[in-house]
Amino acid sequence: MSDASSERAPLGQLGDGARLDWLRLARAETVGASAFQHLIGRFGDPRRALEALPSLARRAGRGQAPATPSEAEAAAELAAGAAMGARLIASCEPDYPEALRAIDPPPPVLWALGDAALLGRRSVAVVGARVASAAGCRFARGLAADLGAAGLVVVSGLARGVDAAAHEGALETGTIAVLGGGIGDVYPAENAGLYARIAERGLIVSESEPGRRAQARDFPRRNRIISGLSVAVVVVEAEQRSGSLITARLAAEQGREVLAVPGSPLDPRARGCNDLIRQGAALCEGADDVLRAIEPLSGMRAPPPIGWSEEDGEPTPDLIEAVFTLLSPAPAPIDELARQVDAPAPLVFAALVELSLAGRAQLGGGRATIAGH
Amino acid sequence: MSDASSERAPLGQLGDGARLDWLRLARAETVGASAFQHLIGRFGDPRRALEALPSLARRAGRGQAPATPSEAEAAAELAAGAAMGARLIASCEPDYPEALRAIDPPPPVLWALGDAALLGRRSVAVVGARVASAAGCRFARGLAADLGAAGLVVVSGLARGVDAAAHEGALETGTIAVLGGGIGDVYPAENAGLYARIAERGLIVSESEPGRRAQARDFPRRNRIISGLSVAVVVVEAEQRSGSLITARLAAEQGREVLAVPGSPLDPRARGCNDLIRQGAALCEGADDVLRAIEPLSGMRAPPPIGWSEEDGEPTPDLIEAVFTLLSPAPAPIDELARQVDAPAPLVFAALVELSLAGRAQLGGGRATIAGH
Repeated sequence: MSDASSERAPLGQLGDGARLDWLRLARAETVGASAFQHLIGRFGDPRRALEALPSLARRAGRGQAPATPSEAEAAAELAAGAAMGARLIASCEPDYPEALRAIDPPPPVLWALGDAALLGRRSVAVVGARVASAAGCRFARGLAADLGAAGLVVVSGLARGVDAAAHEGALETGTIAVLGGGIGDVYPAENAGLYARIAERGLIVSESEPGRRAQARDFPRRNRIISGLSVAVVVVEAEQRSGSLITARLAAEQGREVLAVPGSPLDPRARGCNDLIRQGAALCEGADDVLRAIEPLSGMRAPPPIGWSEEDGEPTPDLIEAVFTLLSPAPAPIDELARQVDAPAPLVFAALVELSLAGRAQLGGGRATIAGH
Repeated sequence: MSDASSERAPLGQLGDGARLDWLRLARAETVGASAFQHLIGRFGDPRRALEALPSLARRAGRGQAPATPSEAEAAAELAAGAAMGARLIASCEPDYPEALRAIDPPPPVLWALGDAALLGRRSVAVVGARVASAAGCRFARGLAADLGAAGLVVVSGLARGVDAAAHEGALETGTIAVLGGGIGDVYPAENAGLYARIAERGLIVSESEPGRRAQARDFPRRNRIISGLSVAVVVVEAEQRSGSLITARLAAEQGREVLAVPGSPLDPRARGCNDLIRQGAALCEGADDVLRAIEPLSGMRAPPPIGWSEEDGEPTPDLIEAVFTLLSPAPAPIDELARQVDAPAPLVFAALVELSLAGRAQLGGGRATIAGH
């Protein structure tokens, strides 16, 4: 909401009456998320916006007032959600996720079933083909587990294939499933077990009324929430023209990082991802690529010095010699050397320091060369 | 060669005597390609350069004159190549490929067996893993055929796997195999049939003496010619730390386009290619991507070599030692060294050439290092 409207806008937790009005306005005919945001900013609260609706519509050339749910109808939606164990979070409320609030426009309401605290954590979306290869699913599951281990919540769309694998991989560490339909609309049916486990250990969210069956037009809105909840979207296997590419496009529009997992040109399921990379998406071979992409202010800071702590241990004589054999007069980046000897960079750096103390290596600018004579 | 020296340099077809001298200078001890280029520019012809070698090396601190093949030895090399049906092309001659002449420094001589007219056509290198997957070989073969159909010559290294497949795919349309060893050194043995077919329908080239067996250190020089002959290098399947990645790096240094074929993160043979893409190589799913990349014909020219003219004068012993003290195992740009000793770059380059003749410095790509031992 703009500064101009902030003093009039109902910020913070809604009371019962305001919640009903907020939901009625959100569900009013022809009131999309953009209009909702504007009306709240302009009229300060949903009640006054609801009152103004007929005249605004009329003034703009519409004969009849937009249909608006009654208070009773809104109360029924709230009751239906509550009966399923879900709760409604309005875009003005503290529990509404910051990342989603930053998209233009944010969904006015979000139904949430499960651990709503996940909405307060940093999230990455992992999405992809419904008809995915076994390898694609395995990759998605492993990526999600690694992202979870790195403290990130994994968001996806509970579809077949890559989505389901991503949720499964992050079930222990935190995952959010965004539905196209309402809470309780389990689709596809084969994901019923996964749905139940996410509702219990993770979080199910939806913009729609509880129980509503998903329709085709709901999925782009769903995709917008998947990317909107996330600092980055990773696409794993996607044919050209697939829904995952729409999510990637929305993510880019929302200023989120887009990553894609490459694949062989001979595999049609890699086409969409390879296209994304060609268009500028970051290449993703694993969680490290994601962590690099979302590092705040990346590229604006010099690489930090390679630290050393006691737990890195001491370099062994074998490691020191392995590092030395890689040195040449051409400067080699230390992280490259670390990859080549398959040891942690701090440990390799320690080995290089010892080689330099021995007069066998030269160090500088994060790179190492063999010492001259 | 620089404008200043071009009137004295032996441009055009060499006569028999000049050809012998050219080859003797090219094969002289401690005379690398950089020094060769400088000496020809400075002394105008190889005979005078040969005569100056002992005093130049002595001035830079080397006790004995660099060993130089006799005229008889050079004539024997020419005869050996001719007996194999090959011919020597000097870097000053019209048949020497333009693209290769543009690299810094160009190989002084090239042995060629087969259809040397292929050197006059636009070429693309297709290189990759020796232990390639069937899919990788199939892709390389198809890519080479498509590039050939588009009028491009396909260059590769006659190695197992991707290289062999690329040559096979372009056998009908034109392919150049660059050897690490000399003409006649068929390696690996399983490619003997392919070698014969390329010699008959395509072209085999080598910087080395005919019959010389390839050694490990010959392959980076071979890779530099593969990329140097080409407007673009496509890497198909490459593990991390593989020779194909060296070719890609050399191509980038030479201002050539670098493309890489993506692959699944689960396939170790895709690691090198995915890394290249992450570092900015263009993604290649087929010949169209190559054609798009080379359309502008942007690169192709390395920075011009540092010329030498009479008015630059001779480097003094003091200057030579001042330059030497600045050298380290880390490559130093020549213009930076020139700034540090406050002398004109051509003069500093002359000092570096003399140091290299004395075995105390190494030159290449406009940069200098202390010579390793």
